[in-house]
Amino acid sequence: MSGTNSEKELIAEGPAIILVEPQLGENIGMVARAMANFGLAELRLVSPRDGWPSEKARSAASKADHVIDGAKVFDTLEDALRDLTFVYATTARERYGFKPVRSPVTAATTLRERFASGQKTGIMFGRERWGLTNEEVALADEIVTFPVNPAFASLNIAQAVLLMSYEWMKSGMEDLGRTPFQSLDQRPSTKEQVFGLFEHIEEALDARGYFHPPEKKPKMVDNLRAVLSRRSFTEQEINVFRGVIRSLDRFARQRPLPATNRQQAEGANTEAQASDSDE
Amino acid sequence: MSGTNSEKELIAEGPAIILVEPQLGENIGMVARAMANFGLAELRLVSPRDGWPSEKARSAASKADHVIDGAKVFDTLEDALRDLTFVYATTARERYGFKPVRSPVTAATTLRERFASGQKTGIMFGRERWGLTNEEVALADEIVTFPVNPAFASLNIAQAVLLMSYEWMKSGMEDLGRTPFQSLDQRPSTKEQVFGLFEHIEEALDARGYFHPPEKKPKMVDNLRAVLSRRSFTEQEINVFRGVIRSLDRFARQRPLPATNRQQAEGANTEAQASDSDE
Repeated sequence: MSGTNSEKELIAEGPAIILVEPQLGENIGMVARAMANFGLAELRLVSPRDGWPSEKARSAASKADHVIDGAKVFDTLEDALRDLTFVYATTARERYGFKPVRSPVTAATTLRERFASGQKTGIMFGRERWGLTNEEVALADEIVTFPVNPAFASLNIAQAVLLMSYEWMKSGMEDLGRTPFQSLDQRPSTKEQVFGLFEHIEEALDARGYFHPPEKKPKMVDNLRAVLSRRSFTEQEINVFRGVIRSLDRFARQRPLPATNRQQAEGANTEAQASDSDE
Repeated sequence: MSGTNSEKELIAEGPAIILVEPQLGENIGMVARAMANFGLAELRLVSPRDGWPSEKARSAASKADHVIDGAKVFDTLEDALRDLTFVYATTARERYGFKPVRSPVTAATTLRERFASGQKTGIMFGRERWGLTNEEVALADEIVTFPVNPAFASLNIAQAVLLMSYEWMKSGMEDLGRTPFQSLDQRPSTKEQVFGLFEHIEEALDARGYFHPPEKKPKMVDNLRAVLSRRSFTEQEINVFRGVIRSLDRFARQRPLPATNRQQAEGANTEAQASDSDE
């Protein structure tokens, strides 16, 4: 369908679209086109299989050159997320975990509110074949999934980006009596600060043999990160947490454990570890 | 994105999708796939350029065989519309005329209402290059157009079908925030569990001289409790936290602190304590 008017203003704002290990240049191009259709412009590629730049991508983008030219390539997903404050992971598979699961409408509304308050946000999309790993999903704040036909649920990556981009566009057009996003007194934490908290606490726990048995460590780390990231701690809150961890980690008790805590510590050592939160 | 569950019921109902003189088999296949994703099944083709059936279409449909197998071919658009009661024409170009122009949401709601009352309806899509003629649009009851970036408005045919199919699926949902799966059902924590967390962490910190100087302790406790309670941790999350505190509190490190953490611990001991979150 045609209808482009090149004299009109090009909308280019909103959340970053992050493609994790995309395989085909054609798909990257179709993603760029879908983004441009609905006013998104910031494309981030994590280790694109066939390298970058890609002539196939440019061709499939159907003149969405501003998106293709502005695309940034990252070696790791963490690098692609560092400067963002709030990130969605898209998935069609059920994920059993702590993370809230949102519809595209709800997710777009949330992204729009955060955009209005000046935050940088993103939406992660997985590989063509098998989507995002659990570890990758764990780096996001919330999950977004699509209301699809249960017996035919497989959306391709460009379609998934199209739907989220479309809902993004709609979220800015609806004339709802919605209250604007409340401006926080505190600064939202960047992903880099969140990753710093993860590494700090995991190192301190690992040094004590907390992640036991070793084969359960990945799941325990997943659950712990889910707990620590579900509610988007502010920068200030992360500083407090790290001060707490440092104190517990580095300094010896100056008096013995009280009797009640001693009992709890002995009785409940297993059941309270992160792996068991996965009921 | 994967996630198809072949044991689940295949939804196949709703308005017919009518493609007017589609050119590429690949596009017809992607249309079929998009329809299947969102529960539509009836595909009508008006004079497909490369004939029918099409192996390229079947391949691009990614197993939406029920849509491909059920597709019907018509010589004229009039023939394709005869048994329908209400038809939308999709277009990205402005059309000056008497016909009402609707958004996809409004159009899907209208189609859903007519479906519920037993009517057969349809949505027309034009050729890849130049859409529908004015004469073809004139055969429809109303026009539907997409909220696109004015400077980059060109949607391909499969994307346009995808968006209408998606809105069709949503129009059948009572709660637009609903998702096919949800995060784990967690019990909200009682205040007693929250107080238990407070006492546990405060005792462990107090035993290390964290609350210093003593006259600042009440304010520091206040701030720490604010951080720990602001977002209503669940019972499971409190269990995870208490396991973390117990590990840090009771067990000695089994290997030395890494250099980076050591520096941070020495440099930032004061500024990261809870009293400083009160800026």
